[in-house]
Amino acid sequence: MEKKIEISMLCQLYGKLLTDKQLEFLDDYYNNDLSLSEIAENNDITRQAVRDIIKKGENKLFEYEEKLSFMKKTLKQEQKIQQVLLKLTKIEKNSSDKQVANILDSIRKELNCLL
Amino acid sequence: MEKKIEISMLCQLYGKLLTDKQLEFLDDYYNNDLSLSEIAENNDITRQAVRDIIKKGENKLFEYEEKLSFMKKTLKQEQKIQQVLLKLTKIEKNSSDKQVANILDSIRKELNCLL
Repeated sequence: MEKKIEISMLCQLYGKLLTDKQLEFLDDYYNNDLSLSEIAENNDITRQAVRDIIKKGENKLFEYEEKLSFMKKTLKQEQKIQQVLLKLTKIEKNSSDKQVANILDSIRKELNCLL
Repeated sequence: MEKKIEISMLCQLYGKLLTDKQLEFLDDYYNNDLSLSEIAENNDITRQAVRDIIKKGENKLFEYEEKLSFMKKTLKQEQKIQQVLLKLTKIEKNSSDKQVANILDSIRKELNCLL
């Protein structure tokens, strides 16, 4: 997985365990594509200080994932749900029943909420 | 939810963020039904010390859940999957196609892995 996507997903999962500054700088750097220098200038601190805060935040995210594996579990779960959605399409192809079609639709909605 | 079940579930989710002692005592107290005095005797410490370690562990678990909501998400997800499993049974009742029955079986297996 691309690092930018990985960090973004880890921030969504564990962001509330970081300091406000760590989360803000990770967001600026990875999601808003600001450079270290730009973040430094915006916050009136050195580029090195920005780098340290980002690094510390990243390390905390990786440590939490190492211990809790929520990202791994979420990705595995999403994969399973995608497989189920594919199988629902197969049922649709094998059935012309209107009621079955309606149930399939409502199942799809339920499952899409989990993605 | 009964406190015993809640703590047990929180330990499964966040247990790796506790100290070994916190996790061990919570397990002894809530899963193995040992009394504070029994745990104290087994570990050669005071009953009060056991109570403090358990309380601290519990508070950490509640704090993590407050911030991350993984238990809440997991329970909601399980509820959705149970609803989907019920709907699969409805499809079964509306279809006599053997191939559909096979697909439904494989979907059930996928979803049961997520429970």
